[in-house]
Amino acid sequence: MRLFRLPSSYHGEEELTLEGKDAHYVTGVLRLKEGTHLLAQDAHGVRYQGLIVVITSSTCTIKLTVASKDVIATDALPAYEGNFTPLVLLQCLLKGKKEEQVVRQATELGVSEIALIASDHCTVQLGKKDVTARFDRLNGQVKEALQQSGSPIPTALHPSVLSLKDLPSWWNGRGPLFFLHQSERQASKDLSFYAHDVDPTAPVGLLIGPEGGFSQRECDLLEEAGFLPILLKTNILRSETAAIYALSSLQELIHQ
Amino acid sequence: MRLFRLPSSYHGEEELTLEGKDAHYVTGVLRLKEGTHLLAQDAHGVRYQGLIVVITSSTCTIKLTVASKDVIATDALPAYEGNFTPLVLLQCLLKGKKEEQVVRQATELGVSEIALIASDHCTVQLGKKDVTARFDRLNGQVKEALQQSGSPIPTALHPSVLSLKDLPSWWNGRGPLFFLHQSERQASKDLSFYAHDVDPTAPVGLLIGPEGGFSQRECDLLEEAGFLPILLKTNILRSETAAIYALSSLQELIHQ
Repeated sequence: MRLFRLPSSYHGEEELTLEGKDAHYVTGVLRLKEGTHLLAQDAHGVRYQGLIVVITSSTCTIKLTVASKDVIATDALPAYEGNFTPLVLLQCLLKGKKEEQVVRQATELGVSEIALIASDHCTVQLGKKDVTARFDRLNGQVKEALQQSGSPIPTALHPSVLSLKDLPSWWNGRGPLFFLHQSERQASKDLSFYAHDVDPTAPVGLLIGPEGGFSQRECDLLEEAGFLPILLKTNILRSETAAIYALSSLQELIHQ
Repeated sequence: MRLFRLPSSYHGEEELTLEGKDAHYVTGVLRLKEGTHLLAQDAHGVRYQGLIVVITSSTCTIKLTVASKDVIATDALPAYEGNFTPLVLLQCLLKGKKEEQVVRQATELGVSEIALIASDHCTVQLGKKDVTARFDRLNGQVKEALQQSGSPIPTALHPSVLSLKDLPSWWNGRGPLFFLHQSERQASKDLSFYAHDVDPTAPVGLLIGPEGGFSQRECDLLEEAGFLPILLKTNILRSETAAIYALSSLQELIHQ
């Protein structure tokens, strides 16, 4: 089922008039007409049954009621109705387009949270202005991906860049945290080794390094914090490919 | 281990002088000096031990001998030394950049073959000129991805676009072939349902539809050919995300 993502300004009103991009999405992209239904979701994950009541050349007005179990979906595309493990993607900074691609794809896959991490080997340096523009673009990707994928998980992008050294206290032991690395001190295991024992309802963190990997200092810190080095059963992947490989495999392995 | 991909003009000569992009890759990207070793692979998958003998401002000359088991790798990056199932990606035509991304990432993941498929709902129409330029670009992506990932699998791009209706005779029963679809006639199963019984050394086909999915006519044809509809344990994915999700999960599920 495709979900229409309601603007963050929406707070449960009975009627909502969309303008600009949002109106165009409903009338131009989804090609919905007056009198048709759609399924919508607000920023807190609450689902609404929508009915399109008026369309003008630039606006689209929708009546909204909190969705019951017998919702009428926007279209007939089948969707996975099983569980999602609350995956948290901790992605070291990448160049703009690659970072947008990862954030977009991770959102499609239904991760619960994404945080950007600054680490020793990141080649990206951000000024204050850059950060605001970057997060605006990334939040745009999240919103679009939520709509197109119909994800029931309202993926949250952590609003600031975290430093890798602050990761242990930020993560605060909420579940296992994996990082892709072959360590000299600790034997890395396969994802499947851990996936069988993971609590499928508790958060799982996945830290993906920058192109240059982690420094020795960082590996020491990560292992001391109890984070688990893992190996993928494949070649050396680019950072953006590794993120999607690991997220996809984790979801399939944990729920098999 | 990173692998240097030898030009297709190389046929086992003892010495090879690289020019242009290839020379730049060795001296500028890998930053190798005279007297250092590298591991190389030709278009047929044969590995060579290389020794850089002369570097000039625009060329790089390498001595090559067929690699023994005690090869000296280009660098110390750890790599997966286990098996790859011969995955064959059958990707319905996508818009240029997305298609390049899928081909690149599938190559990183070590798929054995990629073929482009024309189907009813493909929005891409190709003229003869377009096809040549498209395959040139895609072959460039394959070559670059092979080098960067150090993949031991010499991924082959089928040199023409196949029509979906010709797929059963082209595939010719070489192994199971999965397609992403929820069928009304046949219950779709999860990847993990099939992965346990797959022969890990035989080819596995994976057909990924275009954005609009398959037509009813195509679904009938695919099922009559014995192809297997599968469901992913996730949201509705874009075509390029679905391909990487399914390839990654298959490799991990089959080899767990």
